[in-house]
Amino acid sequence: MRKVLLLTAALATAPASAVFAADLEEIVDARRGFYSLLGANMGALVSMVKGETEYDGAAAQTYAENMRLLTTYNVGHLYAPGTSNEDMPGKTRALPAIWEDQAGVQEKGMAFVQAVESLNEVAGLDKAELGKAVQELGGTCKGCHDDYRAKDF
Amino acid sequence: MRKVLLLTAALATAPASAVFAADLEEIVDARRGFYSLLGANMGALVSMVKGETEYDGAAAQTYAENMRLLTTYNVGHLYAPGTSNEDMPGKTRALPAIWEDQAGVQEKGMAFVQAVESLNEVAGLDKAELGKAVQELGGTCKGCHDDYRAKDF
Repeated sequence: MRKVLLLTAALATAPASAVFAADLEEIVDARRGFYSLLGANMGALVSMVKGETEYDGAAAQTYAENMRLLTTYNVGHLYAPGTSNEDMPGKTRALPAIWEDQAGVQEKGMAFVQAVESLNEVAGLDKAELGKAVQELGGTCKGCHDDYRAKDF
Repeated sequence: MRKVLLLTAALATAPASAVFAADLEEIVDARRGFYSLLGANMGALVSMVKGETEYDGAAAQTYAENMRLLTTYNVGHLYAPGTSNEDMPGKTRALPAIWEDQAGVQEKGMAFVQAVESLNEVAGLDKAELGKAVQELGGTCKGCHDDYRAKDF
């Protein structure tokens, strides 16, 4: 749960005055980068589950471990105030609700972290179990996207 | 050294046949995301060292820990064959030399990982020491960029 707790702590305490416009662009690029990384690992797992690529237990385990590692990254700095899609139109899909509904973000985030843990318990052991875990994980991704990410830039 | 070893192992063994064109774009996005994350943490540290933002020991430590965490991410999948700037012009600055000079990549990578470790020993303790460690780390970033990254897209 570390990531989620850190995120909400950061939302509450980040010193907006110390961040300048140029930094905000860098932050948004890095935030999108964080989710691109998660997405690439998830995408590789989904391809295996769907049979688009051959099942490879060792690779599945690596992707799962990468995702778990990213859940321990301190994302606080990626959510600096002033980086919603209202603040920076066209640059991000992050809705202002992220900063306005910290309890909701934490709840969705905890579900995601838990699903990544469950994935790590089965990834590399069994393709059918991997499929279930990936589906469950995908649901927690969607849970956050539905509420906190705009459909378009 | 884990990241570096995994990278070179991955360069040697990645199954090119299992990766499709659409995946390659996703991989390149994720790779750029990985370095955007590193860059955002490094940029925040450089700002503190330069006095553009106020020195904050706890924040410096967090940025340093984020960077250390990223050195343990298994980057193998981010360096799939077919993702150099010759393969995908305009999408990446990664030179083919990365895939042709694994010993060189490993050497530069080891220097980077070592500099991140040194950074973690002093970040949060002392601004002057932080400055030295950040400068040393910046040199190892540049070392890789000089040899393995094109100046432009």
